[in-house]
Amino acid sequence: MATFVMQSLGCDVAAINTVQFSNHTGYRQFKGRRTPAEEITELYDGLRQSYLTDFGMMLSGYAPSAAVVHAIGLIARDLRYRSTVKPGNFFWVLDPVMGDQGRLYVAEDIVPAFKQLIREADLILPNQFEAELLSGVSISTLTGVANAVRTLHKTYGTNHVVVTSVTVGDAAVADEDAKTQKQGVLTVVGSSKRRDGSARLFKVEVPKLDVFFSGTGDMFAALMVGRLREACAQMDLLDRAGWMPDDDVEAVDLPLARATEKVLSSMQMVLEKTITARDEEMSKFGLSPGASVGGVEGLGATDSDSEDKRTYLAQTKAAEVRVVRNAKDLVYPEERYKAVAMEV
Amino acid sequence: MATFVMQSLGCDVAAINTVQFSNHTGYRQFKGRRTPAEEITELYDGLRQSYLTDFGMMLSGYAPSAAVVHAIGLIARDLRYRSTVKPGNFFWVLDPVMGDQGRLYVAEDIVPAFKQLIREADLILPNQFEAELLSGVSISTLTGVANAVRTLHKTYGTNHVVVTSVTVGDAAVADEDAKTQKQGVLTVVGSSKRRDGSARLFKVEVPKLDVFFSGTGDMFAALMVGRLREACAQMDLLDRAGWMPDDDVEAVDLPLARATEKVLSSMQMVLEKTITARDEEMSKFGLSPGASVGGVEGLGATDSDSEDKRTYLAQTKAAEVRVVRNAKDLVYPEERYKAVAMEV
Repeated sequence: MATFVMQSLGCDVAAINTVQFSNHTGYRQFKGRRTPAEEITELYDGLRQSYLTDFGMMLSGYAPSAAVVHAIGLIARDLRYRSTVKPGNFFWVLDPVMGDQGRLYVAEDIVPAFKQLIREADLILPNQFEAELLSGVSISTLTGVANAVRTLHKTYGTNHVVVTSVTVGDAAVADEDAKTQKQGVLTVVGSSKRRDGSARLFKVEVPKLDVFFSGTGDMFAALMVGRLREACAQMDLLDRAGWMPDDDVEAVDLPLARATEKVLSSMQMVLEKTITARDEEMSKFGLSPGASVGGVEGLGATDSDSEDKRTYLAQTKAAEVRVVRNAKDLVYPEERYKAVAMEV
Repeated sequence: MATFVMQSLGCDVAAINTVQFSNHTGYRQFKGRRTPAEEITELYDGLRQSYLTDFGMMLSGYAPSAAVVHAIGLIARDLRYRSTVKPGNFFWVLDPVMGDQGRLYVAEDIVPAFKQLIREADLILPNQFEAELLSGVSISTLTGVANAVRTLHKTYGTNHVVVTSVTVGDAAVADEDAKTQKQGVLTVVGSSKRRDGSARLFKVEVPKLDVFFSGTGDMFAALMVGRLREACAQMDLLDRAGWMPDDDVEAVDLPLARATEKVLSSMQMVLEKTITARDEEMSKFGLSPGASVGGVEGLGATDSDSEDKRTYLAQTKAAEVRVVRNAKDLVYPEERYKAVAMEV
């Protein structure tokens, strides 16, 4: 997902796969292999020995072990060191993949490993749960999100933060928040700090799609890589360390806000089309359970699968994000959403 | 290369990587790992257990061992078996990557392993040297190429054959061939056999670019996957086993010929732009040897590299095919080349 999306936006990508799985884990079963940390380091050494490390940006995502998180940190440090003469020449987007919806889905020692790293990243992309984990701030309102972002700026010094997919529960929402956090809305909150460490908070709201898609975190991060660089280039910031805009730039005028608007528009366009395609696929499945999923009925290693399991697998497959066929939506997003300043 | 090119043409790709290397082997040094055959089989089993094997086509390329060739064969056989009710639903493009320019660059036991497999493939894409290895026919003239293709049809029963990159040496060219095989020309020869096993030979000539590019074999194969399916769909052949056109279709009207024309046009467009970009990059390198390649001068594990080695690595990097930035040339090739019938 991440590689294709970045390539679609014109980025030359050197991908170091942290896993090679048969399918995403949303299927609840998969085969394959997690890449050991030593192999990741070795691949980077291979790039280095042939002078192939002139990367302008790095995107890091899921790491299967704390040792891999550490190996990623060493790579980022080396790339940063090589760019010291031209500080804007390296920018690290770190997606601290740890869990979602209150549930950790990585080993516990990955949490402190990420905490060590994120002070070196230029932009971090936690979801709501990960923002809680990293900031120590419990989030049940938009004010909570804002405080978490402020804490992330202060504690780790991170220049840019986007909290993806905020859905504060309505029951827990204070009256003042209830006005802004509407039902059926997904909120993304971002900020680029000022020199004094204070936050410049904006939010972008998009209609919430009531489907579980796998890979949307990677999609968001990869689109952000392309769009943030583009927005910073337009504001002539690429020669500055951390691509930091001047302090007098308002929250809604930040390159990060511009980028977030485009990222979300691309995502919604692709996901809406995915839902349409999914519904069509599942209506066919209903007529002939199993047959439309596994090829010829009666073949395969899983004949004994229950109807429920087959249906679940078929639903999961039907919800695979239709990103390849809709690549034009990545490149040419409609102007759908506008960032608004957050005063909380 | 192959994954991105197929995705650019709109194919949803499930890639099983047969290697994870830091860089292509044209650099003469690399780090990383060849995938063991058991892991390839395991990944396929993972797809199968979740009913994710409804592939319309399979492209196989470089295999790092005879065991991997065998594992690929088992996967193809399983996919073929699953499509027996709808024979046109599976089409295997096999690129028998073994060597080039008279030199074998894989282990010797890979040659018989490929020979066992290619009778099951729908389309094979040997280069000149690989066509010699598989057919046993020595090729020094275009007549030799034609005979090799005829032998491949007869010996292995392969429906479709394209011999990529034919450059028969002028010294060895017979007079009649010399008229058609011009200097500075690269010839691609293809054929889809008739029911009686006879060949329908066409050739497409393109200007020869005097640069070594890495990945062009994968690029050809991946473009062919998309373009052949498209051409066969236009001729309403997708429900036939092997997508076989009727016997009365002339060589130059074959979907394989149509596809080859488009594939070569895309390739030349991208490679011409690659040469321009390469020349620009190398002119900068001349001014400041090493600095433009490895980032900050003086850093890196290879300070002791000779100037010659640094120059070689820089040249190799500069010649990396500019496929991501020129993806539109993959999707919208100009109409540049026409297949002509071969009467040899």
